[in-house]
Formats: sequence, structure tokens, C-alpha cells
Amino acid sequence: MTRSNSFELHVEFGDCDPAQIAYFPNFFRWADAASRRFFEKSGLPNWRDAKQSHGIIGTPCVSAQARFIAPATYGDVLQIESHITEWREKSFVFQHMIRRGRQEIAEIKEVRVFASETQDNAKKIRAVSVPPEWRALCK
Amino acid sequence: MTRSNSFELHVEFGDCDPAQIAYFPNFFRWADAASRRFFEKSGLPNWRDAKQSHGIIGTPCVSAQARFIAPATYGDVLQIESHITEWREKSFVFQHMIRRGRQEIAEIKEVRVFASETQDNAKKIRAVSVPPEWRALCK
Amino acid sequence: MTRSNSFELHVEFGDCDPAQIAYFPNFFRWADAASRRFFEKSGLPNWRDAKQSHGIIGTPCVSAQARFIAPATYGDVLQIESHITEWREKSFVFQHMIRRGRQEIAEIKEVRVFASETQDNAKKIRAVSVPPEWRALCK
Amino acid sequence: MTRSNSFELHVEFGDCDPAQIAYFPNFFRWADAASRRFFEKSGLPNWRDAKQSHGIIGTPCVSAQARFIAPATYGDVLQIESHITEWREKSFVFQHMIRRGRQEIAEIKEVRVFASETQDNAKKIRAVSVPPEWRALCK
Repeated sequence: MTRSNSFELHVEFGDCDPAQIAYFPNFFRWADAASRRFFEKSGLPNWRDAKQSHGIIGTPCVSAQARFIAPATYGDVLQIESHITEWREKSFVFQHMIRRGRQEIAEIKEVRVFASETQDNAKKIRAVSVPPEWRALCK
Repeated sequence: MTRSNSFELHVEFGDCDPAQIAYFPNFFRWADAASRRFFEKSGLPNWRDAKQSHGIIGTPCVSAQARFIAPATYGDVLQIESHITEWREKSFVFQHMIRRGRQEIAEIKEVRVFASETQDNAKKIRAVSVPPEWRALCK
Repeated sequence: MTRSNSFELHVEFGDCDPAQIAYFPNFFRWADAASRRFFEKSGLPNWRDAKQSHGIIGTPCVSAQARFIAPATYGDVLQIESHITEWREKSFVFQHMIRRGRQEIAEIKEVRVFASETQDNAKKIRAVSVPPEWRALCK
Repeated sequence: MTRSNSFELHVEFGDCDPAQIAYFPNFFRWADAASRRFFEKSGLPNWRDAKQSHGIIGTPCVSAQARFIAPATYGDVLQIESHITEWREKSFVFQHMIRRGRQEIAEIKEVRVFASETQDNAKKIRAVSVPPEWRALCK
């Protein structure tokens, strides 16, 4: 059984575009929030503390993809449900399903890595091995 | 030969996240801007006029995917180059390559449709056939 | 006594900038969400319906100002409390106080108008008189 | 005579809201970009380097205010012109005028400080004295 995490998400006026619907890049913003909250709920440290303890500054995406199934608009309350579907040596895969009630709205898949800086230089971050104690927390 | 369009893009401080790098949902925002500019350059009307002439309110994404190849940060000037790689009856595929000089930064692929509203109700937009005169403009 | 409305607001990683703190334009985004939610709670129609019933498409800001008292960062849960401090013939004033527990984080003041389109032309919106039945709902 | 800096700004579809006009928090995002570019043009180091040389991580706003004079929409090309109107011991004031051709669109005023971290803890940044060599560069 995989751990999953879900939370409610209010679509705001400012999240919508002139076509009156939620602007699609925001779905990636919401998925990103869902990934962080998943780790928070699992007991991982925040990235400020993780930088001190593990030299890890976050989990940048290596790739991301979304299927947009039905539009959402402001006033909608959505549910986003997230879990990790795969662990590799240096990356892992998040899956997020966004629904309005029972209607599927969008599905997002992210491949992420744990990243550390090399000499405090933003242009040279690199993927590091998944800390096994963090992987264990996410099970 | 396919038409392509490119423009320069300045990464700003506010586009970056606490890991000091461009926050990945912004790449989809930039790709969206690139798609609109491609149509603008090709001679399509803006969506306000298109709503009057064709009942078309925009080109929502059906799916979108990105590969993030190297990070970018504020102060960077990026080039984004876009073209349409495929036309289907009711959808089409955009490809965007983002570079910093000769370094590849990210590649984004969007599947989009031309959409019309059904009775001014934001939750019920639907895909319509690609207007042939617009397709001709994009060649 | 004035009606007030409040809700909880989670600061996300993507809301923060390279200085690790919530990027200040987001406070205006949150204030805007708070204004819309205030009207929603008060019983006003959403802007899609208001366009049909009153020709009103939203409440653009005429001016906005913020005092930033203390920084916030991701993981923070903030409370935003909103009320209308003044009604004029064609405008009204929102005040939003954002707190983390008892600590004040930011205060935002917005002067807004109810706006209608002139001939579906985005560049020519104009302020209209406050509908008295809406004003009554907000008391 | 004060130094001023200006640049062109393209309003994108995704910058606009369901009322078809540029969403007002974006004007603060643009003003923020303008402030950073002003410093860049004046010869100040970026904040990554400034952290090393001066312990300074950026210029957070203490307050910000905007007057919205006329709406803008996607497809618009705006000019933003910025200068510093006042230097105090620990803060300074930016003024940004945004125009479309000769039409004034918005005016934004920001009071900012140079900030340093206290012990790498995002919640405890503090204002520091304006480095005199930087002030000289901005004249």
C-alpha cells in the first residue's frame, strides 16, 4: 500500500485566464504545492533545515506532464490527491489527481530529484541519491 | 519547411524559487506566451476578435509536458523557439525549445485545441475544428 | 458593526522568492482572493452571473497599497481577515490584515469599483454605481 | 538629475484575468522586475554575489502602492520607467511609471530596504544601512 495525501484547493479569480478557466500553468503550481505537502506530512524536514542536515535544497522537476480533462473556474473547490508511484536511485515519480467532487479535472505526473548546490552557485545544482531514511518515511 | 517563431525572455527574481532557480511552472507560462505570439506573428486575430468572428475564445491545452534540462536563474536571458509539429482535425501540437545561448534549458510540448464556449458558461467549453484559413496562415 | 470574513492561507514554496520569503506581489493576489471570498460569503453572485444580471464583470482596483510588517515563508499558515471600511458612490475600500497567529505580517488596502464593459472591449471598462442591494448584503 | 531606466514589457494572455485585463498583482511583479533591472543597469552585483560580498540577499519591500489609471490587456506592449526618488539611511523609494505609448497605465511606488539574513533563517531578515558605494552607482 502506498501512502497518499490530499488537500482542498480553492480556485481563485486570479488563477483564471481571459477564457474564464483556470490557467493551465497553475495546475503545475498546485502539483508542486501538493508534492511539498506530501513530504511535510510524511515527516521530512523543510528545505531550509534539509540544507543544513543533508545539503539538499529541494526537489526540482526533471520532467512534468499533465493531462487536462475538464476545465475548472473560480469558486471551484478541488481535491488534489498525491502519491509517489516509483523510486529510482536518484529520482522519484509523483502522481497527482485533481478532482471536483467525482469529476476528474487534471492528472499531473512529475519526475523529481533531490538536489544539492555545488558551491552556492544556482546554475550548478546536481541530483543526489535519495536519502534512505526519507524514502522510508514516505512509505 | 515549418514556420517557427522565437523571442527573448528575461528571467526575473520573482520567477525564481527559494532554490534560486526559475520555478518550473513558469516554463509553462513562457510556453503559453510563445504559443500566443506564434499565432500573433502568423496573422491570427486575437481571442477577443476571434470570439466575434469564429466563436473561438482561445487554445486551451489538452496536455502539456516538459523536460527540464538545465536550471535558469534571474538575470538570464533565454531564447524560446516555437513551432507547430502536427495538425489533427481538432487539435495541434506545439513544440518549444528554450535555450540560454547554445545551452538547452527546457523543452515543452503542448497539445492544444481551439475552444468555443457553450452558452457563455466557463465550465462547458468544447473543442472545434481547426479553421482551415488559420491553419494555412501557420504554414 | 461591520461584517468581516477570514480564511486560512498556506504559503507554498512557489510563493517564495530567492530570499526565501513570500514574494510581495503574492500578498496582493491573496488580498484579491480575500475580496472575492468576502463577496461570495456575503451572498453576491459570481462575476459570470453578475455580467448577465447587472452587466458587471468584476471589481478592478483603482489603487492598492500594502505595508509589509514581517516576512512569511513556506510552511507558514496565515490568517487573512477582510472587511469593507468605506462605501462611496462608485467605489469602496477593502482592508485586509494578514497574521501568523498573533504576529502581524502585512496589511493591504484596496480601493475598488464595480466595472462594466463597454461593447465587449477590454480596454474600455468603466466604473458603475454600487448596486444598493449588494451594498446591503455586505453590511 | 536622477538616473532612470526603462524597458518594454509584453502583456501576455496569462497575465490577464477573467475580466480580460492585466491582473493587478502583476503590476507589482513588473515593478519588482524593473527595480532589479535598474540596479543591474546601475552596476550593482546580483543578490547571489551580494550575499557573498555584503551579506545582502535582496531588497524586500517595506511598503508598496499603486494607482491603476487605465487597464491593459494581452497583446499590449508597455513601457516601464523607473527611478529612485529618495534615499534614507536604511531605505529608499522607487517610482515606476507604466505607459502604453503616451497613455499612462499605472504608477507604482515601493519603499525598499537592503536586507541581510540573521543566521540563515528566513523569518529573521533585517534591514541594513545602504552601502554608500551602491548609492553612488545609482546616481
